[in-house]
Amino acid sequence: MKCFDIKNPDKTLTDSLIDKINNLTKPKGSLGRLEELALQVGLIQQTLTPKLSNPYNIVFAADHGIADEGVSFSPKEVTRQMISNFLSGGAGVNFLARQHGFKLKVVDGGVDCDFQAIEGLIDKKIRKGTRNFLYEAAMTAEEMERAIEAGAEVVTDCYRDGCNVISFGEMGVANTSASSMWMTCLTGISLHDCVGAGSGLDASGVSHKEKVLTQALQNYKGSYDVLDVMRYFGGYEMVMAVGGMLRAAELGMIILVDGFIMTNCILAASKLYPEVLSYAVFGHQGDESGHASVLRYLKAKPLLNLGLRLGEGSGAICAYPVLESAIRMINEMNTFGNAQVTKYF
Amino acid sequence: MKCFDIKNPDKTLTDSLIDKINNLTKPKGSLGRLEELALQVGLIQQTLTPKLSNPYNIVFAADHGIADEGVSFSPKEVTRQMISNFLSGGAGVNFLARQHGFKLKVVDGGVDCDFQAIEGLIDKKIRKGTRNFLYEAAMTAEEMERAIEAGAEVVTDCYRDGCNVISFGEMGVANTSASSMWMTCLTGISLHDCVGAGSGLDASGVSHKEKVLTQALQNYKGSYDVLDVMRYFGGYEMVMAVGGMLRAAELGMIILVDGFIMTNCILAASKLYPEVLSYAVFGHQGDESGHASVLRYLKAKPLLNLGLRLGEGSGAICAYPVLESAIRMINEMNTFGNAQVTKYF
Repeated sequence: MKCFDIKNPDKTLTDSLIDKINNLTKPKGSLGRLEELALQVGLIQQTLTPKLSNPYNIVFAADHGIADEGVSFSPKEVTRQMISNFLSGGAGVNFLARQHGFKLKVVDGGVDCDFQAIEGLIDKKIRKGTRNFLYEAAMTAEEMERAIEAGAEVVTDCYRDGCNVISFGEMGVANTSASSMWMTCLTGISLHDCVGAGSGLDASGVSHKEKVLTQALQNYKGSYDVLDVMRYFGGYEMVMAVGGMLRAAELGMIILVDGFIMTNCILAASKLYPEVLSYAVFGHQGDESGHASVLRYLKAKPLLNLGLRLGEGSGAICAYPVLESAIRMINEMNTFGNAQVTKYF
Repeated sequence: MKCFDIKNPDKTLTDSLIDKINNLTKPKGSLGRLEELALQVGLIQQTLTPKLSNPYNIVFAADHGIADEGVSFSPKEVTRQMISNFLSGGAGVNFLARQHGFKLKVVDGGVDCDFQAIEGLIDKKIRKGTRNFLYEAAMTAEEMERAIEAGAEVVTDCYRDGCNVISFGEMGVANTSASSMWMTCLTGISLHDCVGAGSGLDASGVSHKEKVLTQALQNYKGSYDVLDVMRYFGGYEMVMAVGGMLRAAELGMIILVDGFIMTNCILAASKLYPEVLSYAVFGHQGDESGHASVLRYLKAKPLLNLGLRLGEGSGAICAYPVLESAIRMINEMNTFGNAQVTKYF
């Protein structure tokens, strides 16, 4: 697989950053998570005056062969239809992107449809949907490699446009199924605890989904090595997100992590390069069953818990103002010294 | 006491609002808290297209006689010093107000100091700090009445400036002590479970604070009627916030509720007019011990939990973008019909 040069940020600045944060006019620690974020971003950017610039949200879209087994509440055509909705500005991710000043890129990673060069859609289509992993590998090794590189390329383009903070989202009917397979194989958490309602299954739907996925796991003859797992249970959009996250970390960008599916993507990315987690800010703990467990496995503490389960990057973008607050805090607050306030701690 | 004309919003629009929200291009319920907020604000404003305009944050500042008993980690002079910090734009609440487009009003409700008409400071001083409630009532009935009216007046001014969403904050050394007294008397929760570290007490400091407050409760000969409790354990800034909240509800404004102290203010307000809670959006669950319990008592589910314990309105303002997202959602998203997306629920 393509190699990435990802290092943990140098920790030398830690004491200076903590000193600066503790001298701002507030009781020590009273800005909670904002103080933790300011430290993390200061280290990523190696500065006492961190900045956020030109945030992007990338929505990777693709179809999944496993959708043929009736594991999703949404019909497969929804993936294609939502592409137009994203591009016309009317989807959930659009109003959030507008609100928080994100540019949006929508990438066709493998939607099961011939788009006639839709304006604004980035064509990285690997194939019209993955193969059905109940019976065979979702993708070939060569397809996976191309998907990793495609994800990385999109991030490089954002970086060249001055972006240093990026979130990833997805659209792909049945991709909670693929994510549950990644999760169980890569964490050892039982499949049962990795399966949820996705876009709206009822109890019997979830039960059918779990039955199909259990059979797929029994049929699987491969190893639990991360590359094998990613390739077999696939999701072109998910592999692209992994490539994008690794490239973002390589470039020293902040990665805003969205919900259940993107959390499983950074899980896979971290199995390849553990250092990627130093660059991750977890945006939101969603309502999809299994999300809390995979977050716990990663020792991740998401900033928000608003009951979202939309995907598209929505939970990540919602968390952006908290990150921005942290950056404003460290750059804009008075210190006890210059405000002539008695240091009260 | 001054009367307020506060009604619960008419519920007739409920079905139409829910219909509108369910027809947006997303799985039903997948925008979680945003959907609840859109419904709440739609009812408050009696419209399918709610709007937020001209948000204000009011910081009420005052000193407390009980500070003489060493119940706070911060020296009393900090209340006065922080006024200048707010007005110079260097405090925590300032960067948050700038970030989210809030105008800020800083009100001297009873700081123990002679300000020489500082520019930008609103003078509503009742007295140079309350009396020490360990031995006597913090304020007289006449002072309380003036404080209620002062809080209401400030809100009226914001309303006249086109504001329909308002948050309240406070600055007042020892006001977590006053808040704990309100909380225990008005909810019946034991004093022990209402007392916390405030701006930074250690375990022995908290223990001393609890001892003082226990003695104050023993010395108290009054009733547990809300007006008696408010007056005796006081806090001019807290009473002003109660007046402000009641006036905001009367005017149909959305009230963003901050942390521990402001939650106890809306608790008191709701004992006078239960309908005030229909207008409340709880912004943040803070780390002050007791906050979770009083929120539970009010059946309130704050939007955020970022470990803040600063006060000043910071937790309320941090939650504003979530409220704004809800309003954008209901106004800006495509419906299944106009986006030609198969309704997938």
